[in-house]
Amino acid sequence: MRENLILHEDPRSGNCYKIRLTAALLGLPLERRGYDIMKGETRTPEFVANVNANGRIPVLQIGDRFLPESNAACWYLAEGSRLVPADRFERADMLRWMFFEQYNHEPNIATLRFWLCYVGEANLTPMQRDQIMAKRAGGEAALSVMEQHLAVHQWFVGSSASLADVSLYAYTHVCEAGGFRLHDYPAICRWLDRVSALPGYVPMD
Amino acid sequence: MRENLILHEDPRSGNCYKIRLTAALLGLPLERRGYDIMKGETRTPEFVANVNANGRIPVLQIGDRFLPESNAACWYLAEGSRLVPADRFERADMLRWMFFEQYNHEPNIATLRFWLCYVGEANLTPMQRDQIMAKRAGGEAALSVMEQHLAVHQWFVGSSASLADVSLYAYTHVCEAGGFRLHDYPAICRWLDRVSALPGYVPMD
Repeated sequence: MRENLILHEDPRSGNCYKIRLTAALLGLPLERRGYDIMKGETRTPEFVANVNANGRIPVLQIGDRFLPESNAACWYLAEGSRLVPADRFERADMLRWMFFEQYNHEPNIATLRFWLCYVGEANLTPMQRDQIMAKRAGGEAALSVMEQHLAVHQWFVGSSASLADVSLYAYTHVCEAGGFRLHDYPAICRWLDRVSALPGYVPMD
Repeated sequence: MRENLILHEDPRSGNCYKIRLTAALLGLPLERRGYDIMKGETRTPEFVANVNANGRIPVLQIGDRFLPESNAACWYLAEGSRLVPADRFERADMLRWMFFEQYNHEPNIATLRFWLCYVGEANLTPMQRDQIMAKRAGGEAALSVMEQHLAVHQWFVGSSASLADVSLYAYTHVCEAGGFRLHDYPAICRWLDRVSALPGYVPMD
């Protein structure tokens, strides 16, 4: 991989952090370009025309090509590395946890963190406020599925860390900012410690 | 791939159809086992213990191993086939559209179809009813991103059909059941025709 890699990011975003953590674990140099999503900097006509028509970060720029979606960017960086299992079933099973992350985990756990920690509960719209309990229940359900798996496995797939762990780590390790209580999930806590002990690990900013 | 493949499904689910369509396009035999999600048949203790702890279909059974998440199951079936691009960037870009499908498309477009067509508007909870307009807007935004791409490209990635097309086709082609209007999206309509003309194509039940 010789092309210049640029991460278009907001450093507070766990989705952006996933890509940075993947690159760090693999020793890949990554240039960073910051945007403030609170100020709408990813919704400008220029961003939508040149970086991502969907108006969202992260986007991984590879030379002059742009790759949105955090887990797809992690895949691009890690394909063929030790972070992607060599076995066909395990590779698909890793993607299974990454789709679970985007469907069951992130929309609940990351959204509550964003609403409660960055937007502020007093500034939520009535419709957002009405969704808090549903997102609380959805987030607890996702954490319970993880806890059940980690009670009997060290990693999400196979016998070592993969992108499934990187992806799920990003918003799990900061979930208390969204009102979740990590102490309720002892197997998750032990797994968080294993991830943060990986060689090359970098913390979130 | 010699192991017996069994799809645990509800035939009304577009997520299940994706897997069936992938197998059909590739000529892979797939045994089908039906559940009625309206009757809670994927939340029974037996299903949760033996098939998917997350209580959801589809699950692709490969011999005695179980793979949840529709797009991961499609990946398992199609890896190394013409439905997965050979180029590294294009392969990641295909996953990008599949993550977009699960994050921006399915939770809006599939959920409105389920609520309006299967649950029935009169039977929705007040909280569900309050979310209709947000999901309408989210679904229209997802369709607009697709329309913009398909106005200048025949397929989502590269110069032929990939899993990105299969994945996005599943709920797009039945989106009118959720109150979306396909005629507003002419490039999407032309692309739907291209997908349904692929050799091996099978319709949804």
